[in-house]
This record gives sequence, structure tokens and C-alpha cells, in this order.
Amino acid sequence: MTASEVRCAVVGATGYTGAELARLLLAHPRLALAQLVGHTKAGRPVDEVLPSLAGLVAGEILDFDPDAIAASCDAAFCALPHGASAPTVAALRERGVVVFDLSADFRLTDAATYEAWYGAHGAPALFGKAAYGLVELHREDLRDAGLVAVPGCYPTVSVLALAPLLRAGLVEPDGLVIDAKSGVSGAGRSPSPATHLPEAAEGFRAYKVGAHRHTPEIEQELSRVAGAPLRVTFTPHLVPMTRGILATAYAQAKGEVTADACVEAARGLYAGSPSVHVFSDGRSPDTLWVRGSNRVHLSYHHDARTGRVIAIGAIDNLVKGAAGQAVQAANVRFGFEEGLGLGAPATWP
Amino acid sequence: MTASEVRCAVVGATGYTGAELARLLLAHPRLALAQLVGHTKAGRPVDEVLPSLAGLVAGEILDFDPDAIAASCDAAFCALPHGASAPTVAALRERGVVVFDLSADFRLTDAATYEAWYGAHGAPALFGKAAYGLVELHREDLRDAGLVAVPGCYPTVSVLALAPLLRAGLVEPDGLVIDAKSGVSGAGRSPSPATHLPEAAEGFRAYKVGAHRHTPEIEQELSRVAGAPLRVTFTPHLVPMTRGILATAYAQAKGEVTADACVEAARGLYAGSPSVHVFSDGRSPDTLWVRGSNRVHLSYHHDARTGRVIAIGAIDNLVKGAAGQAVQAANVRFGFEEGLGLGAPATWP
Amino acid sequence: MTASEVRCAVVGATGYTGAELARLLLAHPRLALAQLVGHTKAGRPVDEVLPSLAGLVAGEILDFDPDAIAASCDAAFCALPHGASAPTVAALRERGVVVFDLSADFRLTDAATYEAWYGAHGAPALFGKAAYGLVELHREDLRDAGLVAVPGCYPTVSVLALAPLLRAGLVEPDGLVIDAKSGVSGAGRSPSPATHLPEAAEGFRAYKVGAHRHTPEIEQELSRVAGAPLRVTFTPHLVPMTRGILATAYAQAKGEVTADACVEAARGLYAGSPSVHVFSDGRSPDTLWVRGSNRVHLSYHHDARTGRVIAIGAIDNLVKGAAGQAVQAANVRFGFEEGLGLGAPATWP
Amino acid sequence: MTASEVRCAVVGATGYTGAELARLLLAHPRLALAQLVGHTKAGRPVDEVLPSLAGLVAGEILDFDPDAIAASCDAAFCALPHGASAPTVAALRERGVVVFDLSADFRLTDAATYEAWYGAHGAPALFGKAAYGLVELHREDLRDAGLVAVPGCYPTVSVLALAPLLRAGLVEPDGLVIDAKSGVSGAGRSPSPATHLPEAAEGFRAYKVGAHRHTPEIEQELSRVAGAPLRVTFTPHLVPMTRGILATAYAQAKGEVTADACVEAARGLYAGSPSVHVFSDGRSPDTLWVRGSNRVHLSYHHDARTGRVIAIGAIDNLVKGAAGQAVQAANVRFGFEEGLGLGAPATWP
Repeated sequence: MTASEVRCAVVGATGYTGAELARLLLAHPRLALAQLVGHTKAGRPVDEVLPSLAGLVAGEILDFDPDAIAASCDAAFCALPHGASAPTVAALRERGVVVFDLSADFRLTDAATYEAWYGAHGAPALFGKAAYGLVELHREDLRDAGLVAVPGCYPTVSVLALAPLLRAGLVEPDGLVIDAKSGVSGAGRSPSPATHLPEAAEGFRAYKVGAHRHTPEIEQELSRVAGAPLRVTFTPHLVPMTRGILATAYAQAKGEVTADACVEAARGLYAGSPSVHVFSDGRSPDTLWVRGSNRVHLSYHHDARTGRVIAIGAIDNLVKGAAGQAVQAANVRFGFEEGLGLGAPATWP
Repeated sequence: MTASEVRCAVVGATGYTGAELARLLLAHPRLALAQLVGHTKAGRPVDEVLPSLAGLVAGEILDFDPDAIAASCDAAFCALPHGASAPTVAALRERGVVVFDLSADFRLTDAATYEAWYGAHGAPALFGKAAYGLVELHREDLRDAGLVAVPGCYPTVSVLALAPLLRAGLVEPDGLVIDAKSGVSGAGRSPSPATHLPEAAEGFRAYKVGAHRHTPEIEQELSRVAGAPLRVTFTPHLVPMTRGILATAYAQAKGEVTADACVEAARGLYAGSPSVHVFSDGRSPDTLWVRGSNRVHLSYHHDARTGRVIAIGAIDNLVKGAAGQAVQAANVRFGFEEGLGLGAPATWP
Repeated sequence: MTASEVRCAVVGATGYTGAELARLLLAHPRLALAQLVGHTKAGRPVDEVLPSLAGLVAGEILDFDPDAIAASCDAAFCALPHGASAPTVAALRERGVVVFDLSADFRLTDAATYEAWYGAHGAPALFGKAAYGLVELHREDLRDAGLVAVPGCYPTVSVLALAPLLRAGLVEPDGLVIDAKSGVSGAGRSPSPATHLPEAAEGFRAYKVGAHRHTPEIEQELSRVAGAPLRVTFTPHLVPMTRGILATAYAQAKGEVTADACVEAARGLYAGSPSVHVFSDGRSPDTLWVRGSNRVHLSYHHDARTGRVIAIGAIDNLVKGAAGQAVQAANVRFGFEEGLGLGAPATWP
Repeated sequence: MTASEVRCAVVGATGYTGAELARLLLAHPRLALAQLVGHTKAGRPVDEVLPSLAGLVAGEILDFDPDAIAASCDAAFCALPHGASAPTVAALRERGVVVFDLSADFRLTDAATYEAWYGAHGAPALFGKAAYGLVELHREDLRDAGLVAVPGCYPTVSVLALAPLLRAGLVEPDGLVIDAKSGVSGAGRSPSPATHLPEAAEGFRAYKVGAHRHTPEIEQELSRVAGAPLRVTFTPHLVPMTRGILATAYAQAKGEVTADACVEAARGLYAGSPSVHVFSDGRSPDTLWVRGSNRVHLSYHHDARTGRVIAIGAIDNLVKGAAGQAVQAANVRFGFEEGLGLGAPATWP
């Protein structure tokens, strides 16, 4: 389907991902921002809730009304917490709205796995019906999707970094270690002790060691690429900065492998992907270099002393790790150029 | 003059202001980025020098060649240090290139003042020939300018905050105090002890107390608005963050003044200015709310206990305080809509 | 009174000021940390609440029991919110405990002023009975005090910076402007949107413009020094860092004044004060240089162009602005050397 | 040997490690700071070079004079770059001064390994003559040492985290991965693009992937513990903060292993070590909790899904990773209590 203009609602517009969706849609030539929907802040002026929109977006945050959205919008981006998202998505799908869901509710394909990590699902009838929105690897699945599950931030960068190695058989699928580091915006907009500046600004720590819910999503996608089930050791950390994820992934090389071969595999896999850049000049990614953009920076290193390949990826967790990726998926879904409205470089420094 | 596409060179492209110019021109529908020029880094790949452009801009940084610029470009943005800028600008002007100069070389109108604060001028024949590029106050002067002096970052926010009060006669022109705070990117890209993260990240300090070179520029412009010479006490400070300037300006109220009257004066003066937003809901600006954007946020407060008006303004020093303002001036100069390519909200948070 | 060892309780030990008190008392040769008291966290292990004490302090946070404190302690440091502090202080005073109160409840001497800024007082019978614990200016008042009101963080640095100028008659008492900037720890340990790292880390803003409750405290103390009532315009700002306050104060010079004369006045006034250092080498204070210490750095500047004196002071808001000052007052009260246990330089960088 | 007071010189006093040595020695009851020696800044006032010492330490930075040091000091702490350190150390050793060398020059025991990673050694006659100053594991070697090689920051935390597991045979010695993250002060005091706040503050990146010089030091010490040569994959990263290192180490469990067994092994090994704390309440270390202190925080996690043990350690790179560890070694060397002068908790937050 190709439309001249696709009208979009943002549901859950008052969190950081919602704010990013608003920013990206305001600048998009074909996707139009039609509604900003929020629950607890419904009725408040947009610019009071999202101060960066002062003088740019008038009006108020609307309460969620699926009929009103269906009446005036073609698509909805849902940026709600997992659990809360499923029934909202169901209500929109019943009314024919194309939904891009940024929660975890529709990312997993195995119901038992979902339940083990998240508990009971909020819309079982829809479970397993979504296309997985990691555009670089699932582009074709998105073209006629009614529901797109936008990947999590950690899975996005982890899978994009490791997929070329597994697909090309350059590394062993067993024993993968992913050590990931995220800016604090990944924890969302709700204040907490862990995100309170005095306790976050000059500290660095791991969290949810061996227990982060993005683990099964990473395993699902890497298993798909590898063609067989695999498991990963995944450890997230909190970086004293606002935006950005860097994932450092460790894999055992299979036979004779060079960094160049890894770069070549990645460049091959991402040849038609405008968001991805693979370094081959010795540099490795820096989250600052992608901050505010939909870009993915990758590098590959071979530690000949230990026979390990180290794959490093960086994204902005709120853009390529959330809102930007959702827009990218929408571009594919509605027949636009994949990078439309997403071509801006990072706001650097 | 209106052109369908204006081809632009960025001279001094390897500093932060140059990088911002590149970012803004890449996204601009009518101004085209034609050349990235640098001196010490000429010949190096663009994306090695400006890592955010990796995968987006191919080619190398070019050495400065005024003939080549004149042959292929209509306009040049010069982002060079003061002193170094004047002869470069002169070479381009001689060849008919419209120049937007982001240095301090052409901002002052009084030669003796320039010399007192900066020393001998590098292109005396051109001195006094520039239009001052603070668009909100000098829009008409820019329409046929050959050389535009893009204002300094501190003067931009200080003058925009105080001008409505002085113009409306709401405050005394004597005794103004401007206490300004800037992110570290204002110090440029050259590393120094003062910008070394361990000595900058958890510290706050004033610098150049009573001696900052933006003082005469602020005084020149505020005197112009007030219609009589005035002096200001100006103290800049360094904030442990990358971008943003907040200016807190103190003025003695003239007779009965209210915060509302100040807001009204500012809204009147900036009625046709798409970049400016004046708060009237009790909030005061936060540099985060304008980060990465060309926006100006202003608020006005009246301290009835002391009879003082406090005017607060926030901008992104690299955008509205430099590159964005230059593009805004170019929009006016070339007959485009003033906010063309500059409408994006801040990348928040 | 001189004691070989003074046993101390910290009431309100689970906030940042309480944590600093614990740190300073652990290192103090004569003041012994006897009890850590907290309300909402009573019963929890100390090191769970104050993670820096892991392996150093065993036991639990105790609930408040004034009899138990009176039975085992000579002194108490109360680090509670204003309002909540007064009745706690009263209960301890009734039992003969010497109290150092870090709240605002006993700092003001005029009841009407207190009520206008804070509302009804929680222990009216004690109001006006405290010694004001700004040691450098009120040392003698502390020697036999039963209750010491430890000054607020902003008043400490503001008053110490301006007092020498007013006392020596170097500046006009009218028209003082104090532009102050504080690290986020000044907002306390409770998370809030304003202190949430993503909305605080790369932003700078003013708050409570013309309305901060430290204003009357500053006015009270500066009026005392000046010998006549005066008013100040006081604007606090939030700096994206954890600790430190810098105050930039502006005053109109009286007649012929030099920076050297200001330095001399300050050095004279603070000759016997081990915490204070006055720069005379052109440098101005940086909060990083006092971070973690009980030190006060001051500098004085004369802007000959406008006839203004600029006084700049820096402290660590949690040390000299709170816990350190309380310990300093306790040293005086109990006959120890004023700087005992407080001599450490900043943890720099 | 036990002395009532040991007089100490700090050679290389003008860098961050030197500044920390000065801070710790000033507070130490038995080690006396006798000389601050620097090369490029000799003759400049101490407090101009080390601003936190303003008002606390008078005098000037001295030029290096080994005879003068030998005449007046018992010990010297050398905080010089590798390469520059060796001849300085040799000059002091020839004169009988006990030396604690904080460079890498004497940490390795295999000359070929040193040469492969660092090039020719600056004092071959002394190579291999140093005791390795990781106190917790080499306490006895230090008691009569003339030269102590103070460990590197990354090796300190990595070895302390993994040693208990290897010693107890809980993990396989093959396939260790150490993903380490350091604050920017680890890069020293010299400004560079990588440490320039605008390019460091909101970014996170790896560096020297597979090539950091601390790798052979980690391998040497872990091999010693394991009783057989082993290799590690070591990747350091730069965290946008000033101080602190967190190391996340991954090891394959040997048979049935629990987190509790790992904790028990660590507590056993570090039973007499006052600096070490091992969490067993589910928390993992945060660098903020040890900032400014000589403490080591450790935690152990077992990922049953993948059979991996994750060991996490945190230190302050400038204290336990450098100056504090040197003082701790000196305490042992001179017969003082190991934790003397080092007992302070972190300055938190």
C-alpha cells in the first residue's frame, strides 16, 4: 500500500519514546502526526508535558479513544509499558488500525517463553500475529503487516551486531556473551532512586544480571539467524548519560577468521540498509556518534591471542532502539523509502 | 534574491560549529552542502573528522581555495576563529560569494572598540560593512547583505532576552547584570585543561570575569535597542554539559512593572519570529528543552521585593547561538521562509 | 565544655546530609558516631540504605527514640526536613541533648518572617533560642549553645562571600544580586522529574525565581553584618552535577574600590578561619576544587567599566553547606580545634 | 621495619595519581608527605598546580633530585608514565629509598612479555626485582620489599574479582572474558580529544580492543592464582564520568556451582582484607559506592541457563586502583595496620 499521507496517532505520547515519535513524525514528509494520546496526563497542554514542543505543537494530550483513532488515523504507534500495551493494541487492531507496538508484548513468538519472562499475556488471541520489526532482517515481513512488534533496544543492537557472524558461520553459536551498556533514558521517564542524578551521574553498574527480559528476545532472533536454538549470557549496565546503547559481544571464532571477513559479512548483509555503517578503519563505535539519529554503527575485531571475535554495536536507544525503528518499519509498511525522514546524522557533539 | 537551490561551502568545517552547519545543510530543502573546507585536516576523509557523518557523507575535507568556492558555490559559511576569519572572508567577498561569518570579526561596528578587545583587524576595508545577523531584530538588513556577521552565542540569548524590556521602556538601561552559563562545546573542539572531562564534569566555575569579549557586542546591540549607550556587567560560567546557554539577566524595573507586561512586550516584539517562545505559565527555560534546535525560550519574572525584573533565556549555543542562526540568516538573505529547515524541536531528553 | 569523646546520634541519617554526617563522624577523632536514626527505613541494615558503608558499619537504622538518644548520646545532629525537625529537636532539647539542627526551623530570628516563608512553626517555644551556626561569623555564640541552627547551603556561601565587603563598607548594601548555582544533591535524596538524570544531566535551569526560602536567611545575616536591613535579589539554578554550589554576587562599589582591597577585607575577616581560602592570583573558585571537603573558596573582582564588585564563592553543599559545617560547629561547641576532622582537601578530580 | 613516622616523597605529583597520593598522605597518621616533585611544573606553587590544596599546602613543586630525596625521605611514591619511571626508580633505589612505583615498569615478571607490549625496558638491572603490590594476594612479599610495583587499575579489580573463583576451582581457567569500564581520569591529566568533555560526556565506547597493555598483567596474576598459564579476552571501555572502574568478568562454571559458593570462596580469600566487601544480598557493585575510597566491592552471579559465573568488581581507579593501593602496600611494608589512613568510606553521593 502506498498513501500520499498516512495519518498517525501516538499512544503513550508522554514518555520518552512517545516524545521521540512526535519529533520524528513532525519532520516526516509522509507520515503525519495526528494525535498525541496519554492516559495520566490527558487534558494537559502538550507543551507542558513535552516542553521541547513549546510553540510548535498546540492543543492537549488526548485520552485514549480507539474509535476516534480509527476514525481519523491510518496507523498508531503504541509506546506503552508491556502488559498495558496488549489490550490497547487489540482495540486498535479490531478497528483496522495498523499498529506499531513498541512494547514487549508481541515480540516473542513462543507463548511459554513469554509467560515465563513476563507472566500472562494481555491479548492472547493476537499473540504470534505480529511481524517482528527489525527492518534490516525482516523487511519483507513488514510490507503487509497489520501489527508490527518493534524490537527492544538491547535486542536491536545485539542482533544487528552478531547476525552477520552467525549467518556467515564465522563464529560458534554456543557461548555468546553480550555485555551491553545503556544510557539512563532506557529506564523511562518515571523517576526512581536508580535514575536520580546524584546516584546515577558518577556511577556505573550492572543490573538484572542474568535476568533481563530482553534475553529471550535476543535468543529468539539469533537462533533464527543461526538456524538452531542458542543461548546467550546477557548483562546490561547503566551508563551515566541520557541516550545510547553500546553492546560488546564476544563469540568464539570458527576456524580461521579475520576482522576483515567479519566486516565483509556485515557489509554484505546490510548492503541495502541505509541506517547501518560498518567501520573498517580500526575505529569502534561511540554512542555519541549516533546520538539523536536512527543510525547503527558496527565494528568487528579479532583477538588472535584468544581466538575470539568481538563485535561492537552502537545505537541511540530512543531512536534506532525505539521510535526511529518504528518509523522505519512504517516506511516499509506504507511503501515509502525505508530511510524517509530518518536520514539526519547525529546531533554531534 | 530567490534561488531554487543555493550551493554552500562550509569553511572551517571541522570544528563543532562546522559540524552543525553540515548537519543543518544536509537536512535543508533549499541550501545545498557543496564543500566542507578545513585547514589542518584537509585531505582527510570527512567521516574520520566528523564521525557522525560516517556512511552519510563521502569524500574528503578540502583545503581552502576561494576560486574553487566562487566557481561552484553561491554562499559560504565561515566558522573560523576571530582574526583568522577576516582575510578568508575578504577573499570570498572579492569573488562575489555571499558570506555568513560566524567569527567575531565583523560583529562590532566601532573600530576602536574592536581593537580594544581584539587587537588589529585582519581586513580593515571590510570592517563595518556587515549586516548583523540577529534575525529577530535585524531581519530587513539581511535581505540584500553580501556579508552577514552572525552574532555570538552569549549576545544572541542576552540581547533577545533584554531587548523587549528596553524597547518597551520597562526597565532602566543602567545597571544591567547578565549572569550567563554555557555548556563546554562553547569552548570549541580543541582539548584543554578547562575542558578535560575529569576537571570539567563535576565542577562549575566562572571565567573571564569582567573581561569576556562578548561584552562589547552585547552592549552595542542593547544600546541600539535602548537608543542610548549603556553598559552591562557580564559574567560567563562553564556548565558541566555539552550544549546550551542560559542567561539570567537582572534589570531595575521602571515604575510599576509586572511579569505579564514583560511577557506581552516580548510576544509583541517576536510576533513574527518562528524560533522564539515566551513562557507565561510560571515556567522558566531549561537548556535541555532547546538542545539541538534553533529555538529560543524566554521567561520574565518580577521580584516585587526588590523591584527587579529577571529575564531568562535559553538557546543551544551551537544552533541558535551559531550554525542555526547562520542558516536562519541565509534563509532571509535568499528569500526563503525564515524557519526553513530549522523547525525541528529539541532532541529531548 | 571539653569532653574526651562526644557521643553523637544522627537523626535523619538516610538522606544525603545524614550520610555525610556519618562519613565525617566515622573519621573524627573526638566525635563518635553512636546511632543512625531514620524513620521510614528504621530496621533496615545500614549498608542497604547507605551503600558506601558496606563492610564498615554493621547494624540497622534505628527508629527515633529521644530517651534512648539522651541515655547514650551527648549530642544529636538532626538532618530532617523543615517542619518535621522542630518537634524532634524539642524532644531532644527537653532531655538535655545538645542539638545541631540542619533544617531551616531555627535559622530565622523573626517569627513573622519565618511564618511568611514557611508557615506555622513546629516548636514555637524554642523559636529564637538557637545560635546561628555560621562558624566564621558567629564562633563565640556557639561555645555554650544548646541548640545550633546550622545554616542553609546557599546562605553559607552567599554570606561568606559578601560579608567582608559589607563589613568593610566597600560596597553599597542596596541592590545586591546573588546568582547561585547548585548541584542536584541539594534537592535531596527523593527522586523527582527535576532530578531524573535524563531530564537533568544535559540541562541547566533556574528555579524558584524570586521565591526561594533561603532568601530571608541571606537577608537576615547580611543585614546583621551591614548593620541595617537590606534586601537581595536571589536566583538559584540547578547544575547537572551532584555536588557543589557556586554563588556569583554583584554589588555596587562604594567610591574607589579595588579587587585587592576586597581580598584584604576577606583575608582580615577570615584570618582565624581554617576552612576559608581567598584567591588573589586571578583565579576564581571552581566547585570541583572543594568537592567532598569543608572548604570555602572565595575570589573578588572589580569591573571598572561598571563600578561593580563581583564576589564569587564555592562550597560543597553537603559538607560546608551542611554536614561539615555542623561538625565544625560541634567542634567549637565542645572545645575542640575548629577544623578537627575536617582538614581533608577535596577529592580532586 | 616499624618507624614512628615515615617521610615520603611523591614523584610525579602533578598528575591525578600524584594528587591522590598527596591527599592520602596528608591524612595519614604515620606516613608524612615530605616532598611534591614534578618535572614540567617544577618551581610553580603547589596550589596553582593542585587547586584542591589551596590554603592547605604551601611551597612549590620541586624538581627531581634523588640525593635530596634520599637525604630527607625514607620512601618515594613514583607516579610517572611507564618508561619514564624505570630510571627514576633506579636512581632512588641506588640511594636506598624504598620505592612504590605506580607505573607499569616493574609489574611484569617476564622480560619478553614486557618488551612485546611496552618495548625496551628503562632499567633492565632492576627488572624482576619488585614485589607485586596487590596487597590482598601478596601481603607477605611486601614486608621487606625495597621496590613495590603497584598494580594497574584494571588488573586490580579484575584479579580480585576472579582470583577466588580460580583458586577454589569453581570456574574453568580457559575462556575468561573481562569487560571493563573506566572513568575518564584513568586516561590521566593530559587533555586529548577522547577526554574533551563535549566528545566524552554523552558518549560511551570501547578502546584498544584486544590490545590494552593491562592484558598481560591480568594474565600473569590470574595464571599465578590458577597455577597454570591462561589467557583472557579483555576489553576496556570509557565511561562518561571521572572516577571508577567496573569489571564484569565471565567464566564457565566447573560442574555444579552456585553464586553462594562463589561468595563463600571470596569471603574466605579476603577474610583478613579490610578493603574488600563481598555482597550476598543480590546487589551488584556500583562505582559510586566506592568513589574516593580504597574499597573494593565484589558480587558473584550464576547464570544457570548458560552455566556461566559472572563476577563483578568495582573500585575507584585513582584510589584502590593507584594511590590508595600504594599507601596500603606502604602500610604493610612499614609495619603499620594495613588499612591505616585508608578507612574512609566513599564520598557518597
